[in-house]
Amino acid sequence: MDPSLKNESKTLRLATRGASQILDVTAEVQSFLASIQARQGLVAVSVVGSTAGITTMEFEPGLQKDIPEMLDKLAPEGRYHHDETWHDGNGHSHLRSSLIGTSQTFPVLKGRAALGTWQQVVLIDFDNRPREREVILQFLGQ
Amino acid sequence: MDPSLKNESKTLRLATRGASQILDVTAEVQSFLASIQARQGLVAVSVVGSTAGITTMEFEPGLQKDIPEMLDKLAPEGRYHHDETWHDGNGHSHLRSSLIGTSQTFPVLKGRAALGTWQQVVLIDFDNRPREREVILQFLGQ
Amino acid sequence: MDPSLKNESKTLRLATRGASQILDVTAEVQSFLASIQARQGLVAVSVVGSTAGITTMEFEPGLQKDIPEMLDKLAPEGRYHHDETWHDGNGHSHLRSSLIGTSQTFPVLKGRAALGTWQQVVLIDFDNRPREREVILQFLGQ
Repeated sequence: MDPSLKNESKTLRLATRGASQILDVTAEVQSFLASIQARQGLVAVSVVGSTAGITTMEFEPGLQKDIPEMLDKLAPEGRYHHDETWHDGNGHSHLRSSLIGTSQTFPVLKGRAALGTWQQVVLIDFDNRPREREVILQFLGQ
Repeated sequence: MDPSLKNESKTLRLATRGASQILDVTAEVQSFLASIQARQGLVAVSVVGSTAGITTMEFEPGLQKDIPEMLDKLAPEGRYHHDETWHDGNGHSHLRSSLIGTSQTFPVLKGRAALGTWQQVVLIDFDNRPREREVILQFLGQ
Repeated sequence: MDPSLKNESKTLRLATRGASQILDVTAEVQSFLASIQARQGLVAVSVVGSTAGITTMEFEPGLQKDIPEMLDKLAPEGRYHHDETWHDGNGHSHLRSSLIGTSQTFPVLKGRAALGTWQQVVLIDFDNRPREREVILQFLGQ
């Protein structure tokens, strides 16, 4: 293996509808790794902001409804103390982001993020309005 | 410290019963780090698939019941839209995986993943049947 | 960029009140990165123990109430099997830690952890009593 360190990033800019819309970013992650000829190491996938999240799922239509419905129960829309600060009605969006997390780091083996066939890396935008999101991919390794 | 980069992985193959069975993988993580003479850096612990998760807990018998019981409330077994796609009855398994996350990355200091005495790294298999799981350990550092 | 690898850690020692008190550690993370002249790579922020967590949030007074109130619903104080082992009444603290996670890894770009303006890295101490916590910062990159 090439002994030199690869330390490469790419920023994806993604338009979302908010409202817990889910976007599959797996192809972008894998093509980023191919473009820098990554072989092995770690790749972080991280969304900037406090009303979105990064996780993995089987990206199929049923679960694209089930995950938002679960979140509607765990952190429902409604009145939160957050509204006293900003009056923007998105307290539930913040809670979902802190619960799911905004960054996930995956092993890279043989040039690919180590995911299952039915496992995709997704951005979920929990905000209550359309947003432009930055998702940062950072690879470190060889 | 040896200035050269260590970039090492190991894949654990683990048989589970599913049904939110919890397996402690801490000893495997620490012995992997010892075997490659890791000193300092980052280690990712990641399960391949969309119906399992990686987290930390105090691995004692009480919490081994409490965690599945919490998940029974947060994402109960039942009818999900996911069943319309696959008819496999494991919608709750997928939801739990997206909620807990499939990958965790830990600092490595003095040759060991930086965990507390009563803190173990665990695989939880949320699926509704026994599975063979791949857990990937990836160290990067020195 | 300096081609040599930086592999640096710092341990923060933080006194908390427990009871889901939230402490903003963002300034400590960014000043650590400045002190080691980090430019690009990965930084892990990890709390040692099984009754605390690391996540991100907008660190404003409203959400500092909303997040504990959400956790009071998802993993309420009460009787857990954990009490049969230790009789310390903090089963809910352990559940919250396993749910939120104890470690988060972020991309570092241009010398700073890649976070939004209204996004802070926080330690939440879920335990039911004051604690001294160790939060480990581990940077790997250049």
